[in-house]
Amino acid sequence: MTLDLQEAINEKIRLVDDALDRALNLDIQKKLYDAIRHLPLAGGKRLRPVLAMIVADAISGSGLRTIPFGIALEITHNFTLIHDDIMDKDDFRRNVITVHKAFDEATAINAGDVLFARAFEVLTQLDCDDRIFREIVADLALTVRKIGEGQQLDMDFENRTDVSENDCLQMIRLKTAILFETACRGAALIAGGTDEQIEGMRQYGLNIGMSFQIYDDLLDIIGNERKMGKPRLSDLRQGKRTIIVVHAFKHAKGDDLECLREILGNRNASSEDLERVVAVLDRVGSLNYARQLTQRYAEEAKTYLDCLPRSNDKERLEAIADYMISREL
Amino acid sequence: MTLDLQEAINEKIRLVDDALDRALNLDIQKKLYDAIRHLPLAGGKRLRPVLAMIVADAISGSGLRTIPFGIALEITHNFTLIHDDIMDKDDFRRNVITVHKAFDEATAINAGDVLFARAFEVLTQLDCDDRIFREIVADLALTVRKIGEGQQLDMDFENRTDVSENDCLQMIRLKTAILFETACRGAALIAGGTDEQIEGMRQYGLNIGMSFQIYDDLLDIIGNERKMGKPRLSDLRQGKRTIIVVHAFKHAKGDDLECLREILGNRNASSEDLERVVAVLDRVGSLNYARQLTQRYAEEAKTYLDCLPRSNDKERLEAIADYMISREL
Repeated sequence: MTLDLQEAINEKIRLVDDALDRALNLDIQKKLYDAIRHLPLAGGKRLRPVLAMIVADAISGSGLRTIPFGIALEITHNFTLIHDDIMDKDDFRRNVITVHKAFDEATAINAGDVLFARAFEVLTQLDCDDRIFREIVADLALTVRKIGEGQQLDMDFENRTDVSENDCLQMIRLKTAILFETACRGAALIAGGTDEQIEGMRQYGLNIGMSFQIYDDLLDIIGNERKMGKPRLSDLRQGKRTIIVVHAFKHAKGDDLECLREILGNRNASSEDLERVVAVLDRVGSLNYARQLTQRYAEEAKTYLDCLPRSNDKERLEAIADYMISREL
Repeated sequence: MTLDLQEAINEKIRLVDDALDRALNLDIQKKLYDAIRHLPLAGGKRLRPVLAMIVADAISGSGLRTIPFGIALEITHNFTLIHDDIMDKDDFRRNVITVHKAFDEATAINAGDVLFARAFEVLTQLDCDDRIFREIVADLALTVRKIGEGQQLDMDFENRTDVSENDCLQMIRLKTAILFETACRGAALIAGGTDEQIEGMRQYGLNIGMSFQIYDDLLDIIGNERKMGKPRLSDLRQGKRTIIVVHAFKHAKGDDLECLREILGNRNASSEDLERVVAVLDRVGSLNYARQLTQRYAEEAKTYLDCLPRSNDKERLEAIADYMISREL
């Protein structure tokens, strides 16, 4: 990422952080107050609101108007993470202890619900045509429902070895890509984009979202724990059916296949066991396959930027597509 | 309840049941499909959507137009129940096993989230002015946030013996009454009511909601398990700080106070222990106090009906206020 892009993004992150802090500065009892702020204010790249701002800037210079929408997306994202961490029994995220561990499970369920409600409250502050507002509410609601469907697939897949690549891509789209899709499409709507731009930005968001999730799955295997803010190889221990694992199940044979079957999803697997799985994933070509796939989605995303006029912001959207697959390992 | 009122309500319940079934007939994976339908389609009095219909009928005969709003309220109500049952570790509701027991906790958390999202999706089908739509979204979102705050207070109070009557009433308002308030106010908005009617219906809803919850707390003690669809005395076993218990803590002395302190919230309390608590609540006058309070709220509710023109529907709203405190024990 160039210095200019990094600066432009950092400035937007500061705007988002400020607005998010204000949106979650509620006059409520202390435990709930602390619980709803715990994860959202522990940092994060604010990718969804930042993307929404840049898309709206690229269309009509109206990035600032998207802020309530972006904050609603960021709060929604955090609410789903808090509930997912309970469901997946994860202890760490973004280098901090998860909400259900820092407080308790009941408070974490409730904090997630309150955040979800708050997302729609903040959304009503959006300065836009009432007709567009209605469309954005419908989009966000459908999106959260789809994220729930994706989470359910993700959990169900853990107990299956017959998950196809298409199943897996569908799950990734629901669980992750759809929120990027909604971020970019909604921003284009708010910015008064043409039908072609609205559809183009939806496709751009969808493709960078796919790219982002597959890269994230790679990071679980070849990433840096401190930078990820959570333990490495936790997806493997949990038996998550990532595109990498699905590819490996299809192509591994003999001892390699046996190794996958024995160790994936075994919560008591040792580090050595898990590293044996990593060696199999590498040998079978699954890591390379995922690298190519994430690259392909990023390239595909960039083709949808043709509907935008030439501008710095358009170039930033191109750079973000590349960034998705070059984040530090 | 008169036969005429019962018939009018039954007809509306059928409309709601049909619309609810359709709203939750989603093309999603079977486990999630079954989980989101488990509680909402297990029956229920559909009080909130029925009230919304009658309020809109009383104002401008526009009851049918409120259906998407009423369904959103009913789905919201069910989502909060599913999550509350996880938090409160309850096994039964409406004579059926709770969602987290019938499926698993992760699926129940996720099913609640999907229902919450679906509520807003259904709401976007509302046929009303876009400006009013925005106000209704804001109202519903704020309401769900307040319900979460009420649930948190309810849980926090379990570990405290210094809960005041005002604390308790505030908790009831947030946890229960606000959804009735929003149902009646929103219906008045959709029906094109005057400012006085919108505010009057809000007050009517608030007061019947308070009345409803206090009566519900009474039912836990003096009700019929089969008709309630859940075990009697479970609030006492759990140590819930209902208005009855708060009153008793303030007025009980000596052995009576000791009995409350020892048994309330003791999950291993025997039936005999709990019946001893009931005897204390009766002796100290707490049951009577709650009866009077629920009556007072119902009477207060009826005074807010003055803003409505004379009609059958207005009489039905009066009868519903009375019904709230004469449901079968």
